[in-house]
Amino acid sequence: METTYRSIFKWGDKREEKLEKGIIELVKEQFNYTDEDFKKKVLYGNQQVKLDKMTSIPESTRRKFIEIAGSENVRWDDYSRASHAFGKFYGDLLYLRKGEIATPPDLVISPRTEKEIEQILLLCQQENIAITPVGGLSSVTRGVETPRGGISLDLTKHLNKILKVNTVNSTVRVEPGAYGPALEKHLNDCGYTCGHFPQSFEYSTVGGWVAARGAGQASTGYGKIEEMVLALRVITPAGIIETKDFPATAEAWDLNKIFIGSEGTLGVITSVTLKIRKYRPENDAFASFVFKDFKSATQCMREIMQAGFGFPHLFRLSDSVETATAFKIKGFDNSFSDRFLKMKGYRPGERCLMFVSIEGDKEYTHLVKKKIKKIARKSGGFYSGEKPVKEWLKQRYESAYLRDPLMDVGVMTDTVETSVNWDNLLNLWTQVRNYLESREKTHVMAHISHVYENGANLYFTFLSPMKQGDEMEDYLNYHSGLIDAIHNNGGSLSHHHGIGRALAPWMEKEMGKTAMGLLQAIKDNLDPKGIMNPGNTLGLK
Amino acid sequence: METTYRSIFKWGDKREEKLEKGIIELVKEQFNYTDEDFKKKVLYGNQQVKLDKMTSIPESTRRKFIEIAGSENVRWDDYSRASHAFGKFYGDLLYLRKGEIATPPDLVISPRTEKEIEQILLLCQQENIAITPVGGLSSVTRGVETPRGGISLDLTKHLNKILKVNTVNSTVRVEPGAYGPALEKHLNDCGYTCGHFPQSFEYSTVGGWVAARGAGQASTGYGKIEEMVLALRVITPAGIIETKDFPATAEAWDLNKIFIGSEGTLGVITSVTLKIRKYRPENDAFASFVFKDFKSATQCMREIMQAGFGFPHLFRLSDSVETATAFKIKGFDNSFSDRFLKMKGYRPGERCLMFVSIEGDKEYTHLVKKKIKKIARKSGGFYSGEKPVKEWLKQRYESAYLRDPLMDVGVMTDTVETSVNWDNLLNLWTQVRNYLESREKTHVMAHISHVYENGANLYFTFLSPMKQGDEMEDYLNYHSGLIDAIHNNGGSLSHHHGIGRALAPWMEKEMGKTAMGLLQAIKDNLDPKGIMNPGNTLGLK
Repeated sequence: METTYRSIFKWGDKREEKLEKGIIELVKEQFNYTDEDFKKKVLYGNQQVKLDKMTSIPESTRRKFIEIAGSENVRWDDYSRASHAFGKFYGDLLYLRKGEIATPPDLVISPRTEKEIEQILLLCQQENIAITPVGGLSSVTRGVETPRGGISLDLTKHLNKILKVNTVNSTVRVEPGAYGPALEKHLNDCGYTCGHFPQSFEYSTVGGWVAARGAGQASTGYGKIEEMVLALRVITPAGIIETKDFPATAEAWDLNKIFIGSEGTLGVITSVTLKIRKYRPENDAFASFVFKDFKSATQCMREIMQAGFGFPHLFRLSDSVETATAFKIKGFDNSFSDRFLKMKGYRPGERCLMFVSIEGDKEYTHLVKKKIKKIARKSGGFYSGEKPVKEWLKQRYESAYLRDPLMDVGVMTDTVETSVNWDNLLNLWTQVRNYLESREKTHVMAHISHVYENGANLYFTFLSPMKQGDEMEDYLNYHSGLIDAIHNNGGSLSHHHGIGRALAPWMEKEMGKTAMGLLQAIKDNLDPKGIMNPGNTLGLK
Repeated sequence: METTYRSIFKWGDKREEKLEKGIIELVKEQFNYTDEDFKKKVLYGNQQVKLDKMTSIPESTRRKFIEIAGSENVRWDDYSRASHAFGKFYGDLLYLRKGEIATPPDLVISPRTEKEIEQILLLCQQENIAITPVGGLSSVTRGVETPRGGISLDLTKHLNKILKVNTVNSTVRVEPGAYGPALEKHLNDCGYTCGHFPQSFEYSTVGGWVAARGAGQASTGYGKIEEMVLALRVITPAGIIETKDFPATAEAWDLNKIFIGSEGTLGVITSVTLKIRKYRPENDAFASFVFKDFKSATQCMREIMQAGFGFPHLFRLSDSVETATAFKIKGFDNSFSDRFLKMKGYRPGERCLMFVSIEGDKEYTHLVKKKIKKIARKSGGFYSGEKPVKEWLKQRYESAYLRDPLMDVGVMTDTVETSVNWDNLLNLWTQVRNYLESREKTHVMAHISHVYENGANLYFTFLSPMKQGDEMEDYLNYHSGLIDAIHNNGGSLSHHHGIGRALAPWMEKEMGKTAMGLLQAIKDNLDPKGIMNPGNTLGLK
């Protein structure tokens, strides 16, 4: 088994092994990279993992944990600890590439049952040991690290079962450690779909989706995870909270909503009941459009969302730079279609690409597509067929695997996302773009991928050469200015990545003092000793 | 001005003045009433309001409240206090009819501004005075009474403005004291609709809708109020919490959802931002069906909700007794259509009536109607045209005005509602029906009026002669057994009426101890002195 730092920060997916030709050309062109630059490996992280400190949990306590969970499920070797020290925040990857792990967990425990989790939590309370529940460790907001050491509670090894598909109620009950593909495969085999396809789908878990309040690529139709969760069971240090899967209630306020987005700070989610929908890919309708500019395309999106004929499921709009980048990478530039589009006035550097898919009943998907085509045409959208969407869907998760090979050649690359109301969308997009482009040699792309009647998200991707030798501070400064730009221009701190520790410093400014006091009071009630994912997650004490 | 108890419990609506002929016949038939019985007036409440105790807030304190809110907005005359002592719970009406008001508020204050509310809350904290924010006082769950006396904070007099209709974002920002018709009229004039039409619409306010977590008649399409609220501003004793109207976020957990359903226990909601939709009644599609029985009709409902072509807005199914009652009252029995239906096997006492309306884009509403007709036909539903729905909509709020004239003649009548998953719906309906019918001379009707992919609500209406002289205990015993029947058979305590004090005794059984501790901790954080709507609301201390 490979035990390098590199083996930790890599997803272990073969799609991340090399860069596409189009990307290499982009980097050469934008950053004046030469072939030589692509041969130098920057912060490759190929050294063997070796931690400075042994686990600080004494043997007598470790023995108690082993009694609870079994010796094969309690690990404190360097590699196990190192591989649970970080998520996928850009800074995490830098630390791993440098072989710097300041605060690894002391133990990695993989509980087999809910009862074991209860016992582990009890022991952690008695001994004041921090505990962080983790799934796929794909947090990009520093949500899973262990600044106080303690336990990384791995839910993926055993608590990954699909407990019950109820086709009458159209629900599934599932354990938190189930990964996206396993859940979706099981549901598809039963004729259903979960409808939740975050970018991290292949390496993230149901528990993580709920804890981080995520959204999938089809969220415009299916909703964010908070719209899918009907019931939860959560082991908190204060006891068990279990909600029921009623379709709706007026039983005081909705407790599900307190755990969705709680990022492990309140307890361990041990089961989730989700809405499911019929899986009928043969009914899916697809459409792609090219618009003359971002403004007309966003107006079209808004009109579609407010038209009252239902929503597309996938609804995505790349801004002009992202569109141009995609066209370049996919070899579209100077093709016949490209020349045709240019002739029609869809100019590179201005034109924007929109993707649509609609799921459900066949006549319904056809009607919605027809309606969308009509509105798009009116807004100057050129219908470019189904194929671009279908092609995109085939590689829908790939962009997540681009980051590591780019970092290998010294390119800083990250994504940040926000949500905004329609009447502020163009302003926010402009201001954040301006900020990002104020850094020299920076390639900035943006898209909208989660759309609502009242607004949308904005998702920014940037590529820029690392400031070598000063990679971390350089990144953190840039990132901090970026969040300021979003916050000061009326965007939310996050639409679906969550807050973690990365965005925690902005929480009080965003929420206000009284609201932060309320969040803390909820935390204090359920976790009076402060053992659950401690250390500033969500800005909590 | 009329100052009888009767003037308080009556809505003041002329539709409640007399009973329809059909209702009179039903009562005669079911309860062996004679014409004489209809002449006796039972607990008529015609005496002048006279309270035993003066306000217990001393003059010096009253003077401070007057300084804040102005003398015309601070009242402590008997009638003002009496008319803010109760909501519309059946027991409330009995007390008022008897002229018994044990715990009226000491003051009724109608603040003019948010600033005044802040000052009032501060003073209440200093002097330990209870305060209950109220809107239309239409609570049917004892949510607005004042067991500790103190202040009834009337938000309808001044804080009733529609602050901003934003047609780009498709939102309205409104003050809590705005009544349904005023809001809807304003929105219609702007080309929009709120889509929230609770039974109490004409006499309830936006703040009440949010506080009690209500649902409107078109909720199957538009969602419950929790799906409509984008942002809230709430003055709590601990400070102000204001959420933003982002379309969605992942900023920790959703604080809106803590105030929706809080029933005045956490603070005073001072503004609400709601989603709005285009108002296009010309596009509405209507359909009604008669089914052979409740079972096949509910299966049809489920199939429609899970079919993936969108949802109807109004979606309603009366069970066989409610259907028979409606047919009798509306003079349908023995009509040509009735005979035709009977011939076709739609038998009285078994057949069930379903109403559908669909709103939105014209082609969409037509498609959904077509789809629904197809599924209904397959389930044995007989299409009975648009007219019954249109007729029903004309009198959509009337049933609320039936209760008082029935009580006038000694008929106990009340409604209780729950939600349930599809796989338990028929069982719950049967069990609750059996319980209700175990009382002699009781007419029990039920319907489904809020439908989901995963289940539906059940709404029970019962009529039974009062046990004269022992009206209250008789009712409370019967009601208590009813809630037990719902709870023990897997229904929620409420789908949209809320909990108040009437259902508070079941809360811990329903939610569990840890969850109740969490509710209490939230309360204690925002309202450390326990002044907000105190006295067991939601089962809180």
